[in-house]
Amino acid sequence: MLKLYYAQGTCALASHVALEEAGAQYETVRLDFAKGDQRKPEYLKVNPKGRVPALATDRGILTETPAILAYVAQVHPKANLAPLGDPFAFARAQSFNSYLCSTAHVNHAHLMRGNRWADEASSLEDMKRKVPKNVAESFALMESGMVEGPWVMGSAYTICDPYLFTLARWLERDGVDIARFPKIHDHHRRMEARPAVKKVLEEWARP
Amino acid sequence: MLKLYYAQGTCALASHVALEEAGAQYETVRLDFAKGDQRKPEYLKVNPKGRVPALATDRGILTETPAILAYVAQVHPKANLAPLGDPFAFARAQSFNSYLCSTAHVNHAHLMRGNRWADEASSLEDMKRKVPKNVAESFALMESGMVEGPWVMGSAYTICDPYLFTLARWLERDGVDIARFPKIHDHHRRMEARPAVKKVLEEWARP
Repeated sequence: MLKLYYAQGTCALASHVALEEAGAQYETVRLDFAKGDQRKPEYLKVNPKGRVPALATDRGILTETPAILAYVAQVHPKANLAPLGDPFAFARAQSFNSYLCSTAHVNHAHLMRGNRWADEASSLEDMKRKVPKNVAESFALMESGMVEGPWVMGSAYTICDPYLFTLARWLERDGVDIARFPKIHDHHRRMEARPAVKKVLEEWARP
Repeated sequence: MLKLYYAQGTCALASHVALEEAGAQYETVRLDFAKGDQRKPEYLKVNPKGRVPALATDRGILTETPAILAYVAQVHPKANLAPLGDPFAFARAQSFNSYLCSTAHVNHAHLMRGNRWADEASSLEDMKRKVPKNVAESFALMESGMVEGPWVMGSAYTICDPYLFTLARWLERDGVDIARFPKIHDHHRRMEARPAVKKVLEEWARP
């Protein structure tokens, strides 16, 4: 059975929702980042990067959200979570997810994780000040040219949707009003109404 | 015909090498970042992100290195550039490429592109100071647990290889000695000996 390692507040939400939407047989393991679970030896055996998500499969561990999302779609083809038979359309979905992990998530990460890239308190404050502008620019780009509506790829719900939803949930903390992006705002409400999303968020909300 | 937009010194090298290895029918368009070509209106119509690579296909433009690499492999299946029939192995390749774009490339980017995330000169200097440590940590992780050898995925040359080669070429500028990573060092020499790599590097070296 698949086993997803996650921590509250992280991008592992995207993989969790995708597993639920796929109708996958899976279980979850929650890490407590406040207790440093991700740096403990037993977890570093699972994922030497000390990050989440990690997905344990019967052939080994997978990490990195875009890879996990495409894997979930490929091993649950009946769920139609990606345009698997169309390399161009599949590449567009992958392009969206790559943008989220390499640019949009990184822009957000400079709010609380600036110490990954700098040491001085003044640098961390400088980074924090720039987060609203950078995150808003990422979302403006997605709104204007990347999100088709009502779902990211258009009429079909795909693995891009839970990933966008995950990053959009961070907008308020990033100091960006989601209402500036009407398509993404509408997308967010549609996501919140999905039974799979409700079920996962209930699990994440438990103490 | 496929058309790759690239600029010297960028991660577009990975896509260019992959196209060459695939035996693809393609042409190239070089942008001059020193002249700001990537911010000119005609290029922003191609890629509103103002970045490279971008790959024009007969169905539209693709961006983001991991997406382009997987696309090149999928539309040239005879070149065997990815384990297309094995979702777990494909996910491992995708995981590697996701790590490069979201973590390893981002660590490198704080050397010269720190102004993406901060404004003060002191912050940019702080970021620069941390680059050798961060880049070395990324490569140590790849060396110890992600690069099988002789190629990234083991005995098969895949779309992961030109991407690793691209980032490894930046190590010297990042202040990191590639000799610290024996498998990656060996990989680099093997890559430099490949005819496809030589051909592409010759084109990139032209004034």
